[in-house]
Amino acid sequence: MPDLEVEAEALTAVLDGRWAGLKREVRAQIAEEKFRDPTELDTEAHRAQVLEQLQALARTDRPGLGYDPAYGGGGDVGGSLTSFEMLGFGDLSLMVKAGVQWGLFGGAVQLLGTERHHEKYLRRITGLDLLGCFAMTEHGHGSDVQHLRTTATFDHGEFVINTPDESAVKEYIGNAARDGELAVVFAQLITGGETRGVHAFLVPIRIDGRPAPGVTISDCGLKAGLNGVDNGRLSFDHVRVPREALLNRFADVAEDGTYSSPIESDNRRFFTMLGTLIRGRISVAGSAGNATKRALAVAVRYGERRRQFFKPGGDEVVLLDYLAHQRKLLPAIAKTYALHFAQEELVGKLHDLGTEPPEQEQRELESRAAGVKAITTWHATETIQMAREACGGAGYLSENLLPALKADTDVFTTFEGDNTVLLQLVAKGLLTSYKDQFADLSTFGTVRFVAEQIVETVIERTSARKVVERLASANDDDVLFNREWHLKLFEDREEHVLGGVARRLRKAVDGGDPFEAFNNAQDHVLRAGRVHVDRLVLEAFVAAIARCADPAAAALLERVCDLYALANIEADRAWFLEHGRLTSARSKAVVSAVNSLCAELRPHARVLVDGFAVPSQFLRAPLLDS
Amino acid sequence: MPDLEVEAEALTAVLDGRWAGLKREVRAQIAEEKFRDPTELDTEAHRAQVLEQLQALARTDRPGLGYDPAYGGGGDVGGSLTSFEMLGFGDLSLMVKAGVQWGLFGGAVQLLGTERHHEKYLRRITGLDLLGCFAMTEHGHGSDVQHLRTTATFDHGEFVINTPDESAVKEYIGNAARDGELAVVFAQLITGGETRGVHAFLVPIRIDGRPAPGVTISDCGLKAGLNGVDNGRLSFDHVRVPREALLNRFADVAEDGTYSSPIESDNRRFFTMLGTLIRGRISVAGSAGNATKRALAVAVRYGERRRQFFKPGGDEVVLLDYLAHQRKLLPAIAKTYALHFAQEELVGKLHDLGTEPPEQEQRELESRAAGVKAITTWHATETIQMAREACGGAGYLSENLLPALKADTDVFTTFEGDNTVLLQLVAKGLLTSYKDQFADLSTFGTVRFVAEQIVETVIERTSARKVVERLASANDDDVLFNREWHLKLFEDREEHVLGGVARRLRKAVDGGDPFEAFNNAQDHVLRAGRVHVDRLVLEAFVAAIARCADPAAAALLERVCDLYALANIEADRAWFLEHGRLTSARSKAVVSAVNSLCAELRPHARVLVDGFAVPSQFLRAPLLDS
Repeated sequence: MPDLEVEAEALTAVLDGRWAGLKREVRAQIAEEKFRDPTELDTEAHRAQVLEQLQALARTDRPGLGYDPAYGGGGDVGGSLTSFEMLGFGDLSLMVKAGVQWGLFGGAVQLLGTERHHEKYLRRITGLDLLGCFAMTEHGHGSDVQHLRTTATFDHGEFVINTPDESAVKEYIGNAARDGELAVVFAQLITGGETRGVHAFLVPIRIDGRPAPGVTISDCGLKAGLNGVDNGRLSFDHVRVPREALLNRFADVAEDGTYSSPIESDNRRFFTMLGTLIRGRISVAGSAGNATKRALAVAVRYGERRRQFFKPGGDEVVLLDYLAHQRKLLPAIAKTYALHFAQEELVGKLHDLGTEPPEQEQRELESRAAGVKAITTWHATETIQMAREACGGAGYLSENLLPALKADTDVFTTFEGDNTVLLQLVAKGLLTSYKDQFADLSTFGTVRFVAEQIVETVIERTSARKVVERLASANDDDVLFNREWHLKLFEDREEHVLGGVARRLRKAVDGGDPFEAFNNAQDHVLRAGRVHVDRLVLEAFVAAIARCADPAAAALLERVCDLYALANIEADRAWFLEHGRLTSARSKAVVSAVNSLCAELRPHARVLVDGFAVPSQFLRAPLLDS
Repeated sequence: MPDLEVEAEALTAVLDGRWAGLKREVRAQIAEEKFRDPTELDTEAHRAQVLEQLQALARTDRPGLGYDPAYGGGGDVGGSLTSFEMLGFGDLSLMVKAGVQWGLFGGAVQLLGTERHHEKYLRRITGLDLLGCFAMTEHGHGSDVQHLRTTATFDHGEFVINTPDESAVKEYIGNAARDGELAVVFAQLITGGETRGVHAFLVPIRIDGRPAPGVTISDCGLKAGLNGVDNGRLSFDHVRVPREALLNRFADVAEDGTYSSPIESDNRRFFTMLGTLIRGRISVAGSAGNATKRALAVAVRYGERRRQFFKPGGDEVVLLDYLAHQRKLLPAIAKTYALHFAQEELVGKLHDLGTEPPEQEQRELESRAAGVKAITTWHATETIQMAREACGGAGYLSENLLPALKADTDVFTTFEGDNTVLLQLVAKGLLTSYKDQFADLSTFGTVRFVAEQIVETVIERTSARKVVERLASANDDDVLFNREWHLKLFEDREEHVLGGVARRLRKAVDGGDPFEAFNNAQDHVLRAGRVHVDRLVLEAFVAAIARCADPAAAALLERVCDLYALANIEADRAWFLEHGRLTSARSKAVVSAVNSLCAELRPHARVLVDGFAVPSQFLRAPLLDS
């Protein structure tokens, strides 16, 4: 067995990767006292503290990293995403507020607007001279953005922004309740009596601290967490904005009301516009990952010092020496590493694609972003909950950090895309990607298409299965820690599940109603999305180890990757058994292997979480003092 | 298929069961405006509101229900537990504060004290003229109560209560930070230089609103939830209390310092004392169940009215019509029903056992209480989280109730016994119950014993397996909804897992260290505890249906019970496959059967949650208005 001793710094170097310098810079800044947690602040004081922190960030050159260099930006999209993610180590209200201001609001101006918007706004947004909102979600429509009901009617050279009824009120809008002055409002564009679908408009909402005429603003009030962000509701009573308020990169309205767009299909234009906004989703995933690291760093340190129950005739046992405790923490650490590398790969891909990516690659990236976001944020919710329980009563006290981590990250599973909806998107992307053209990604649109055209293509990709079958009769010891086996098992599972979904949809659609067909297969559809992401995540982990120059770090990470792969197989072993990919004996051997890996990695638990390099101010908790 | 139409009231009648009258009484009281949720109150205002609510409860005859009628009590233990549980529908801070005052503090005086304590205190405790604390947990020892380090040294006719160091500070003590005047303090009794183990003492901690001399009190500060309870820390600097301060039902110290006890073994005396305190654990489980019902009532109502995404060429789909949404909510409803009946059975058994139960039955009851508490509180955490996600962004707003439910119930998994430790207790109880005498229940004590004596007894109980094998080749349709099959499958699983644990422990102990032996089998030990509880829960559900006089209600509950059983089998089907209890084909059929049951029960989701009869004031949430 190789020597697994390694310094935390070596792991940090692997984790920090391509934007390591920037990560060091953010860590150094948020280590300042100013960026402290808001423990025991009331809502108003918390909001004020977050705004001050935001102003401190605005004095660096990072807020503009993602924008066009022509307007003071850095032209470094990957760096921009990285700088948001890093805020996930600290108060998540700051991460969200920064994300709203520079990611969603500024990002929409950059990516949906044109020169006139960039010229007028980007520098002011970057420098925080103009605070803004991203007003997409409505009371009645969150996931189904295509059916938003706010209207923007072209009338005498202007747009009239209107909230027709209660269900069209903009809901949960960050920066709306207190600080925002301008909002990017998503509304149905109507010109010449014709509805052209959802477009984005710049609408002033607050002037000199008071709601602009025709705009009604209310506060969403107390939330489970993230109370440093001033979420509010916005409604518009026939608010007139100039024609230039339309963010017109993908569509425009001429002075005479004529509508034009370089993208002919309404559907395709809509998804192209939405597609540019995946940066927010990626930032949420990255921040969720960093919050998870912080929770694990707390729980492992506590688990290493806390003792309970005496050995017969011996010392009091350290919590982390119990198998049950190792079982809670170590697979979660392994998955956190795995998801980190998948996230890093995603950021790198987005960065490298540039501003005019080929459509197929853009779609693939969107799907990957949706999937990684869903899996990472669910992992955050589960892991932070587990970390709280692993710290017992101490974990319940606010001073010990876990309550805020739990409360703040909770909404990540349903905002920037509800995870269930996102996994469906992933699955549909996979089904449609067999077809060489842009397809309708709406919820039910692909069903018939899939049913008619895809099945054979999907079910014939059986190369992975051959490897799995070849290794089926090998000795357990030769297989359980064999990376090829892990990879092929994940790949084969994905192909099989996807083929099964396609078959089910085809069978169900024959003579049936498309909603019923889709709905009866929904659990399989979600599963297809999940196992696809699992495969990408494992491959990203393997690639990261291959890049790792430090042999000791690589050796340790190989074991962590084993644990990630085997814990995943263990959790899903019912499927592998049902589908003849594991025998009963090997399935039990997988469970034993996870136990052995937990024991083997237990002495390295601390260095693994130290490698996360959580700034020490965010680990300042009394439960770690004694 | 039978007609499943039923009125909510019929379900409520089944659920309310034996203490139905009392339940109606509590529902009527907490429906008063005074018992409102504390939305947006700060900590001090919340504590004040809870104290006022507690005073309103004190004006009823329920607080004394569990005490001796000779001192104004009701002698109705089951009623007492029921009245605590019912508070779980409302603000959980009130439930916990009432539980501390009347359950833990008053309960310790009643059950560990003797006439002199009853005479002096019970009426004052009942009427809230004396507020008190239950000071057991210390900073260094929570789960391992036997090794508490606070001392009570007999000296010149008095006890000297002392906190030797930081680790012995009493921690998370309810009623300590603000309101408590007297505390039941658990401490190592030392007399004549000899330590006699943990005993309970009445110690004044606050006089006229200020800490008593020698007592240091601090506030635990903000917690994740339950901020209406004033948890605090207590330490004692050689505080002298009279000899009569010892709660002396199970042991006494004479004036000359002579120690005496009707129970010879220190270990047995300790567990007997602790055993009397299971009422608190039972109340927590019941309250967690009621909080879960409330969360489900919110999520089902929302899922019934919220629509998202249009059917092709049709209407917008109601959330609860999606299979994925049914999969989230319906199995959770079924398990909530199942756990309710297990809880009711537990309360009934405790009530019927009376004050001097046979030891074997008392042990069995303690084990059952531990197991039901662990499974119910984990179910609460998972279900409330799921309900939050099922309500999307709306579920994250405090006004919509779920944030407080989530935050308040979180600690239930680790207080009144950490769930992991409790499941271990359950498993050990099962192993030792084969031996006809009281056995050491400490963490490692049973290992060698098990190894030497039990194996054969355990592994020979194979009657259930025969039934399972007989039905293995039956038609799926004849088996999947066959209650005998469910029951025998659960029973057989329990026997097999328990036998496996015994074999593992024996094998490992042969020539090994008992800690290692125990630790290597810890995941199997926990599993044994879990599947034992699963079996008890299913049996309780079956028994409740058998008692049900209303045929329509019974028919619906049969389907709910099917869903409980099949969802449990589905979640654990890897085990059933590995152990040859399910074939691949039948395993897949179980998954399909769960889907069919979800569809079949979907139209009844609302009546199932209406049957919980959550008082309407606790469902007053804006997300249910539109």
